[in-house]
Amino acid sequence: RLHPMDARSVEIAAGFWADRIRLNRERTIPHGLDRLRSTATLDNLRLASGYRAAADSSGATFPFLDSDVYKWLEAVGWSADPALVAAADDVITLVCAAQRADGYLNSYVQAGHDEPYRDLSWGHELYCLGHLIQAAVAWHRALGDDRLLTVALRAVDHLPGSLVDGHPNIEMALVELTRLTGDRRHLTMAARMLELRGHRTLPGADRFGASYWQDHEGVRDASAVAGHAVRQLYLDCGAVDVAVELGDDRLLAAVRARWDDMIRTRAYLTGGVGSRHRDEAFGDPFELPPDRAYAETCASIAGVMLAWRLLLATGDTCYADTIERTMYNGVLPGIALGGTRFFYTNPLQRRTHRAPGGAGPRQPWYPCACCPPNLMRLLSSWDQYLATYDDSGVQLHQYTSAEIRTPRADLRIGTGYPWDGRVAVHIDRTSPEPWTLSLRVPRWCRSATLTSPDGTLAVSAGTVKRHRRWQPGDVVELNLDLPARITEPDPRIDAVRGCVAVERGPLVYCIESADAPVRTEIEELTWDPGRPLTPVPRPDLTESMIGVDVPMTGGLTAGAIPYFAWANRTTEAMRVWIPRL
Amino acid sequence: RLHPMDARSVEIAAGFWADRIRLNRERTIPHGLDRLRSTATLDNLRLASGYRAAADSSGATFPFLDSDVYKWLEAVGWSADPALVAAADDVITLVCAAQRADGYLNSYVQAGHDEPYRDLSWGHELYCLGHLIQAAVAWHRALGDDRLLTVALRAVDHLPGSLVDGHPNIEMALVELTRLTGDRRHLTMAARMLELRGHRTLPGADRFGASYWQDHEGVRDASAVAGHAVRQLYLDCGAVDVAVELGDDRLLAAVRARWDDMIRTRAYLTGGVGSRHRDEAFGDPFELPPDRAYAETCASIAGVMLAWRLLLATGDTCYADTIERTMYNGVLPGIALGGTRFFYTNPLQRRTHRAPGGAGPRQPWYPCACCPPNLMRLLSSWDQYLATYDDSGVQLHQYTSAEIRTPRADLRIGTGYPWDGRVAVHIDRTSPEPWTLSLRVPRWCRSATLTSPDGTLAVSAGTVKRHRRWQPGDVVELNLDLPARITEPDPRIDAVRGCVAVERGPLVYCIESADAPVRTEIEELTWDPGRPLTPVPRPDLTESMIGVDVPMTGGLTAGAIPYFAWANRTTEAMRVWIPRL
Repeated sequence: RLHPMDARSVEIAAGFWADRIRLNRERTIPHGLDRLRSTATLDNLRLASGYRAAADSSGATFPFLDSDVYKWLEAVGWSADPALVAAADDVITLVCAAQRADGYLNSYVQAGHDEPYRDLSWGHELYCLGHLIQAAVAWHRALGDDRLLTVALRAVDHLPGSLVDGHPNIEMALVELTRLTGDRRHLTMAARMLELRGHRTLPGADRFGASYWQDHEGVRDASAVAGHAVRQLYLDCGAVDVAVELGDDRLLAAVRARWDDMIRTRAYLTGGVGSRHRDEAFGDPFELPPDRAYAETCASIAGVMLAWRLLLATGDTCYADTIERTMYNGVLPGIALGGTRFFYTNPLQRRTHRAPGGAGPRQPWYPCACCPPNLMRLLSSWDQYLATYDDSGVQLHQYTSAEIRTPRADLRIGTGYPWDGRVAVHIDRTSPEPWTLSLRVPRWCRSATLTSPDGTLAVSAGTVKRHRRWQPGDVVELNLDLPARITEPDPRIDAVRGCVAVERGPLVYCIESADAPVRTEIEELTWDPGRPLTPVPRPDLTESMIGVDVPMTGGLTAGAIPYFAWANRTTEAMRVWIPRL
Repeated sequence: RLHPMDARSVEIAAGFWADRIRLNRERTIPHGLDRLRSTATLDNLRLASGYRAAADSSGATFPFLDSDVYKWLEAVGWSADPALVAAADDVITLVCAAQRADGYLNSYVQAGHDEPYRDLSWGHELYCLGHLIQAAVAWHRALGDDRLLTVALRAVDHLPGSLVDGHPNIEMALVELTRLTGDRRHLTMAARMLELRGHRTLPGADRFGASYWQDHEGVRDASAVAGHAVRQLYLDCGAVDVAVELGDDRLLAAVRARWDDMIRTRAYLTGGVGSRHRDEAFGDPFELPPDRAYAETCASIAGVMLAWRLLLATGDTCYADTIERTMYNGVLPGIALGGTRFFYTNPLQRRTHRAPGGAGPRQPWYPCACCPPNLMRLLSSWDQYLATYDDSGVQLHQYTSAEIRTPRADLRIGTGYPWDGRVAVHIDRTSPEPWTLSLRVPRWCRSATLTSPDGTLAVSAGTVKRHRRWQPGDVVELNLDLPARITEPDPRIDAVRGCVAVERGPLVYCIESADAPVRTEIEELTWDPGRPLTPVPRPDLTESMIGVDVPMTGGLTAGAIPYFAWANRTTEAMRVWIPRL
């Protein structure tokens, strides 16, 4: 097992992710508070806390709106930004005031819309509580502030012993609570919830089918992901957490098998999952249409969360590869370069000519606004995903300029990744005993070298380890060759037969109509394999961005940009998969 | 303008369609009555007519259920089958009894679920009335029974002057009423409804968008079909009917332009339209996924209805070509070979390995059962689609063994179509003056000859006409060459790039897993262009069916069957489009 880094032990210093995290802190999270206030999202909490008359209820009718408040609070907690923390004070006061005397807390129910624990399929009460717990954990760990933790513990104490919630989430939160408090009752409750699931006890299966809620097969028995994608992945996050804490290798193996099958058969090149609009569900194996891809931003986030848990549980860096692919290409497209507009779904193709009333640009918010605050909390905690440590040493999983303090050593990373493949690891402090530095060599990389005090050698994809007695001032340099490359799809994906994609390093690229040749619609372009791909700077989009000029038949060239950067200009047609016939 | 045949002037004698119509009469329509009785479909009518206590209302909560009753009655009317007519007597009595004293009739509203004409977006009151009118017209024309007509006229008199209904249908019914009664107020009302539409007056556009209801642009202005497919096509049926009656060529041209664009950009090879599950809507141009094709059976039926109106209005046989393609490949797959099970959606691909809870076999009925009785009424009136006449002569559009009586001549058609391409037209009676016999040469046909008393000559796709002074006993024989053929998709349809389809005559073929080589899943098969297609009898499915053996790479062969016959055996994987890479 690998150990995660403490929230205060990693600092992302500069570069790609530092820019993103700063944007999140300075623009996105404040925008979130503005939206929580200006939409009806806080209204139920105000009702429940007595700050607002019941007659004034206007439209706050989704049962899961509390969760957006909690996700936003979690984002603020991990950010540890003083201005945001101060701004969150009123919201925390509202949450504290809304809790009933007996500990129950769900503002939608308290506002009179339902009875506690009555509608388990759609009620989202435990889902919301799970997010409250995760916010409480963030505020405890990053800020030492236990106001939310007090509320969360009282709310958990009010829970009946045996429930199955329509939207998994609380399972992983309860395990986290045990990790924080040492109280194993929470872990036991999470384990019980997992065992109860899969016996078709959730009402409402007539319309959606039990698989929508992963209630069709036991969490140990299901061999494939099914139903609503975010629900499945959150459920499996909880299953890994329970398996790790209980040493339940069979449960862990079941989740791994589902994950491996999902990556093999139901994941987009971008890491996005859940291809169907209908029910926001996984489709059949290899049912991965680029145009009608649902690929909800939250499903990509859930994929990162689950891959992270599997990485910690197994040490297998293939999960870190998936985290990288999904963060750059599945999560980041969900947010505009300006930080205040969001995509809910993430298609890999949008045509020049479209039906009226279809998808438009990223939106400032959504009536069901799960994705924006989910992006906020992930970006706010992204520093925790870079590295791990164990008894043998330190493992670096994601590359960006950062300072990392582990019990054994302090490391300083310098890199222009993902635009540049050189990653320098400076050892600023180290214990005198020998230890192992592990570096992930991404599986997209076909040529790499490692330079250390032991010399330079070629390394191949997977993990490269250097075990030695390190000295302060030692430098290890990983050089990843990242030419633009052509990627062929799995031939079983019917929807992109006869197409190729362009990638460079960890990034998936796309052709946008703004970069198509003059007087050409992108639907007319066909890749010309006879001429090379050419990386080119794209300062018109962001300062250090590298685009790729793609040769097309007829002597044409189209400029590809990273997929995460699409739809940031006025034109809107786009495709990742380019026909080669 | 062409004149339709009187309901009693065509008799389909034997062969493919005779079998289908007999099945409809003997199995499907009786099954429909059984289902109307055993489901809650008649419950609201019973409530409204006082036959049933209000407290007993169980589940009859869809506002459009009356329409299924009316469609079933229409099917019985056109069938003119004495046993069915007798069986319908109770239902007609129920409908008559349910009408309010002031003429209003909608059992869902009368059962207390709503107020009259309050919910125009979703209420389906005018939609149901439209189907009542069409049933009334059938009973008047085929049986001379005016009980339903009396009810319908009273209900129409209760309508406010200016309404836009969420689900178009009443427009074409009102025009039909004018044609039957001569009362032009109905036509005027229909024309007014068309003009009111397209001004975004229907409530509810926040979730669905005005285009869902074709309320986003005027019926004269919209250049493309949009939104819910059945709604769009029913609306355009009404628009053609109004245009023809008022001589409004601009309105007719607008519908033709939308239709031509739809056939070019949004129709499946099967004639199916409305590719999206979401909102049962047309997608973007060329968004035609085979696996996630919605292609509702009702949308194909609506396509036949609209093409028929355009054929009558313009005389252009391209519309008869589409009717043929859609009847065989878009409508017929909706009903099992046994006649009592139905598909609502009609995908062109189903994988061997599928997500749990997905589509299964055809169902005996649906909670929203629009498609089954729609199939019944179309099959019941199919004889009326075979031929037309005008001042110059007689036009034959669809080929099946039949007797056709026109004012000018009696014709007797003998053919084994669609399995065999020879169509013999016997002239049993004729007026002494010369007249023109017109025969459609389908656009799928690349080689055909016509033999008449004037000799034999090659004819090409389109229309072939013979003008002469006919004699009783004259025979005209059309010989359509129908080898099995490979069809390439439009290169703009991304979802089937690199694939081909197999067709023969008017039929689209598919590979079903039951006919794949032993130990092979159909996903592993790739077409081998180096060997020929071979037509083979398939008596295992139906007596005269012709299948096509398709060469696959690796020396394999897979048996293709007509797409309409798929899912009539135990296995279920299927594909129309076969990879060629």
